[in-house]
Amino acid sequence: MEVEIALIRAWAQQAGNMLLRSYFNQVSPERKLDKSLVTAADRAIEDWLRDTIHFHFPDHGVIGEERDPMGLDREYIWVIDPIDGTSSFVSGLPLWAVSIGLIRRGEPQAGVIYLPVLGDCYWAVAGGKAFWNDLPIQVAPPQPPGPNDWIAIPSTFHRSYTIHYPGKVRVLGSVAADCCYVARGQARAAIIGRAKVWDVAAGWTIVQAAGGTICPLEGTLPDWMTLLQTIRLPNPVVIGHPQQVAQVCAMVRRINP
Amino acid sequence: MEVEIALIRAWAQQAGNMLLRSYFNQVSPERKLDKSLVTAADRAIEDWLRDTIHFHFPDHGVIGEERDPMGLDREYIWVIDPIDGTSSFVSGLPLWAVSIGLIRRGEPQAGVIYLPVLGDCYWAVAGGKAFWNDLPIQVAPPQPPGPNDWIAIPSTFHRSYTIHYPGKVRVLGSVAADCCYVARGQARAAIIGRAKVWDVAAGWTIVQAAGGTICPLEGTLPDWMTLLQTIRLPNPVVIGHPQQVAQVCAMVRRINP
Repeated sequence: MEVEIALIRAWAQQAGNMLLRSYFNQVSPERKLDKSLVTAADRAIEDWLRDTIHFHFPDHGVIGEERDPMGLDREYIWVIDPIDGTSSFVSGLPLWAVSIGLIRRGEPQAGVIYLPVLGDCYWAVAGGKAFWNDLPIQVAPPQPPGPNDWIAIPSTFHRSYTIHYPGKVRVLGSVAADCCYVARGQARAAIIGRAKVWDVAAGWTIVQAAGGTICPLEGTLPDWMTLLQTIRLPNPVVIGHPQQVAQVCAMVRRINP
Repeated sequence: MEVEIALIRAWAQQAGNMLLRSYFNQVSPERKLDKSLVTAADRAIEDWLRDTIHFHFPDHGVIGEERDPMGLDREYIWVIDPIDGTSSFVSGLPLWAVSIGLIRRGEPQAGVIYLPVLGDCYWAVAGGKAFWNDLPIQVAPPQPPGPNDWIAIPSTFHRSYTIHYPGKVRVLGSVAADCCYVARGQARAAIIGRAKVWDVAAGWTIVQAAGGTICPLEGTLPDWMTLLQTIRLPNPVVIGHPQQVAQVCAMVRRINP
């Protein structure tokens, strides 16, 4: 890869530490047109990341949650979310993340997720292993769920689905965090709602490098070039070890289909 | 109160920082007879808390998660959980807490919850306000739930109940954390499963000092003297503003009653 992973990790960590020191528990949210939340922190850190990327790589494109996309026809496209889990962030909850993905000609090249409250960095370069800080990580091997095993589900899952998982479920409040805990083998799997491309660009790269797969609950998965245009996933997906994912898919039922 | 709240806060913080520095992400869990998890950290910190309490207040009773109760006939009884959310702790998740409650003649006197990863302390003395660090806090006022409002539910709730809440749900993985975020008005309410007395002794004191109430989903709430003997709640409860709690109770349905 032409771009050094150490550089991306340093950006994510710097952005995260700015959020922690200058904004966390200090900002009030506004509602966007889609009713999701945004704060001055999301905008300031996205601007900082865009400026930083543009300074180092003026030919690269960038797409992010808070500003218009730029250069989607370029060879390299950065897919950034300054705060994945803004709703957790504004509630003073600890699981929110800086997420930076890099796509080259429709193929993911690298993903970095930094969880500032924990000081944890999860990252992968396509074709390599996935890492939690400096430790290589892998998705959990498939096995019958015990009472202390858990999967992550979305915060609005209860409105449209039921799940018959015999272990525990958790709602972490951040898609990026869902991906990290699946990649590390702590969550047996995660169900991700109709997320947007910047929620998953880094996380899926890390999950795949950790031996995991991404499987839509219904329909097919769009390719990255399509997702960069359409932004939102057409259906929820399940991530985890391939056999685990198949088991979890079978446990989900739609309410009033 | 005869016991200084500053002293209890200092113990909780010291215990939490020992957990963070010496055990978090460094210990493996074992399964207890009831299939819940325990680590060397739970036992070491409970012993440290018991020794500390006994040194300062040799006449007081103590009941905690990991060791036999002592002196339940005394005027003052300390109700301690060295790690509330052991399952989160062993998964490397950030929401776990040191919980210390103090009961005098069947009435709660004080509650302190320390969330080490966040460095947040929630506390209250009976008859006074509730605090998040040094800021007074209150439960959220009742209002129709918006799309970004959330309630906390237990990790095994999906096995026995459905909920028709129009906002978001979260599963934080710690009953003590549920109580803190309700007391601070960030969670609109929380449903707490059949918790044990050390999970709720500090949290309920804080929620009540913040203007909240505790309402069982079915049946009646045992008094503290009973709960100190029976340990486990007979039914799930809902905590939050009194009117909010009534609304949430009405949204819950048992599966196959």
